[in-house]
Formats: sequence, structure tokens, C-alpha cells
Amino acid sequence: MKLDSAGLQILSRQECVALLVSASIGRIVFTDRALPAVQPVNFVLDDEDIVIRTGLGSKLAAAASDAIVAFEADEFDHSTRTGWSVTAVGPARAVREPGEIERLSTLPLHPWAPGDHGHYIVVRAEQITGRRLSRRHDAREN
Amino acid sequence: MKLDSAGLQILSRQECVALLVSASIGRIVFTDRALPAVQPVNFVLDDEDIVIRTGLGSKLAAAASDAIVAFEADEFDHSTRTGWSVTAVGPARAVREPGEIERLSTLPLHPWAPGDHGHYIVVRAEQITGRRLSRRHDAREN
Repeated sequence: MKLDSAGLQILSRQECVALLVSASIGRIVFTDRALPAVQPVNFVLDDEDIVIRTGLGSKLAAAASDAIVAFEADEFDHSTRTGWSVTAVGPARAVREPGEIERLSTLPLHPWAPGDHGHYIVVRAEQITGRRLSRRHDAREN
Repeated sequence: MKLDSAGLQILSRQECVALLVSASIGRIVFTDRALPAVQPVNFVLDDEDIVIRTGLGSKLAAAASDAIVAFEADEFDHSTRTGWSVTAVGPARAVREPGEIERLSTLPLHPWAPGDHGHYIVVRAEQITGRRLSRRHDAREN
């Protein structure tokens, strides 16, 4: 088990992808008028690409197309103070090709929010990093 | 109830602050070597400032000091597909004054991760925005 300088377990790319498959909500991180911006989204993995849906006129659609973005998902258990987080960084692109839109529309990706979500954004996860926070005192308790 | 263009309920600053008080994990969004970066942290509110602890040599300490950052917390219920998110944007500063460090050390902020966390970062929430996703079909069901 590899630990980082903060004592957190470093996850492999394979472990990160498996955790992303298990999650349905993440947060896309982008720049909006030169300020850091973050928005929760539901998503699905398509191979190792992150696929989200949004409205064509949304701030997210405008800011996250053809930009480098980060995408984060995590899960923490407050009672045990354990959990994991995975962050992907890579280029986001708006999907415009009708054949690709048709294919993506068959994915199990159903927006939680009301309103128009006909616009697909795909984030290529060029870098994926992940950390797991395990119980601190396991060794002492055993 | 005010809705945004995506049909989500717009929360007041007061509602956002109350939700942040109820949360203990958030995500700090910053820029790391010109790329968007995001890291989960546990936090506490000090009046309306967001207080986090980190190691002095951490990437977060280096990148989030004297920079404009975003801070996001959220909570979603997968079974009902409802939830909320709050995002604060403002300047982050490293706390260096011993009196302030002493005062902050009395706050109920106990790092989940192992390792050194003697370094305090305070984010002034100049802008706070929040959204709530309620059940879509309430009106129809009543």
C-alpha cells in the first residue's frame, strides 16, 4: 500500500476508474470569468471518459467546452472518518456529431435536475488520481 | 421560491450559511500549475469564513494561499434524487498571526487525515451561492 506525504493511500488508475463507476454524482471544476467554479453533476463513465448532460445555454456548457477541467467524485463516512476521492483532469468537449449524440443517449445517464439537458459534454480523463483515507488506528486496535 | 434557469431552487445567503454549518466535508477548488485542482477537506465555519487545516508543505497550502478559491459542499440523496449544493468564492489566506492561530485552534476542527495539520487556511466567503434540487413531481403527486 503506497501512502502519500499526508498519509493517505494512493489509488491506482484502475482502482480510481472502479470507484468512478460506483459513483453517480461528481463535481466539475472549471473557470468562469477568470474565477474558479464548481458544479455538482450526475455522470456516467463511457470507457474511461466522463459523460455529463447539461442545457445548451448553461454556464457549464459555455465554460467547460474546449477547456481543461477537473472532475471530482468522493464518498466519506462521517462515523468512521474514512472515505475516498478521485480526481480526473483533462480536456472537455461539447459533443456535436449526431451519431455520437445518439450513441451517448443510450447510456444510463438521466439528469436529476429538471429542464433541458440535451447537450453532452465529454471529459477525457488524461490524469486520474485518487486517495483513500482508511481508519487511522487499525494497527493499534488489532 | 425562486428558481434558476435550470429549475433549481435558488438559496439565500442565510440558507447557504446554515447548510455549510450542517456540513463537515467540502471541496476546495484552486489552480495548481495552471490546471484546475480540487481537494476534499473537512472544515468549520468561523462566523462566515471557511476554516481548514493542512500541512505547511502541502500542495493546498502552497496553491491556496493568497489566491481566489472556490469552496463547495453538497449533500445528495440518491433514492429521492434530491439535494443541495453551496459554493463560496473568495480570497484564501494562510494564517500566520500566533494569536489568531491560537483562537482558531479552539474551533471544533479535527483533521480526518493523519499527518501534520498545523497550518490554517481561511477562505473569506465573499460570494455564496446555493441551489436545492427538490422532488420534481411533487406538484403532480399532490
